[in-house]
Amino acid sequence: MDWLDEVKWDAAGLVPVIAQELSSGDVLMFAWMNREPLQKTAELGRAVYFSRSRGKLWFKGEESGHVQEVHEIRMDCDNDVLLLKVVQRGHEPGIACHTGRHSCFFQLYAGATAGGAWKISGSVLKDPESIYK
Amino acid sequence: MDWLDEVKWDAAGLVPVIAQELSSGDVLMFAWMNREPLQKTAELGRAVYFSRSRGKLWFKGEESGHVQEVHEIRMDCDNDVLLLKVVQRGHEPGIACHTGRHSCFFQLYAGATAGGAWKISGSVLKDPESIYK
Repeated sequence: MDWLDEVKWDAAGLVPVIAQELSSGDVLMFAWMNREPLQKTAELGRAVYFSRSRGKLWFKGEESGHVQEVHEIRMDCDNDVLLLKVVQRGHEPGIACHTGRHSCFFQLYAGATAGGAWKISGSVLKDPESIYK
Repeated sequence: MDWLDEVKWDAAGLVPVIAQELSSGDVLMFAWMNREPLQKTAELGRAVYFSRSRGKLWFKGEESGHVQEVHEIRMDCDNDVLLLKVVQRGHEPGIACHTGRHSCFFQLYAGATAGGAWKISGSVLKDPESIYK
């Protein structure tokens, strides 16, 4: 059986993907894949996603240069979520987020006692205007 | 504006959630929340999800005792994915997976040169039969 067939693709043919930094363990981003991006990710050793907004393959870093070198591809117990262990290339420290931050998960819930709002936690390492020309 | 209104719930009123172990950085599991579970998670400081298979609130650990103590609630740049930083309680080391393993992501793609299959990587810490009686 083909390893790609063991993935339980959803009704839209997609599967959620978590990208985690190999060295730090930081969760960098969340995206989606269908069959072709997963195959390409394995072949190339770099993260290829499916962009739901653009409706096409998304070679992570194709515009920004912020390529993700893929060291592990993991799958969960239900075969319906993937986890990539990556080295985030193109900038030191790595920038995974389109806002120029290390991780996409830079909004932190402050808690009811602190007003119950989302606070920014994570600095912009590079101006997005200079990432996407 | 209510912090819950800032989350971009999908067409089914759900948002994907990644649970990450606070101490190790290990990604433990992936689940879904709608509005009520997120509110309860924040109130109780323990993970409450929405079980899509059972169509109801799922107080993580309600059967297994493997409760997740929530230390951080983070949201991504698009406001449509959440990340919890948790302490996995009820067993030492923590068991997040219903298979009795530490993490749900215990299937590792072996790579084309190794036959291209998914290999088990992660031992069973407790027999699921004794977790769910």
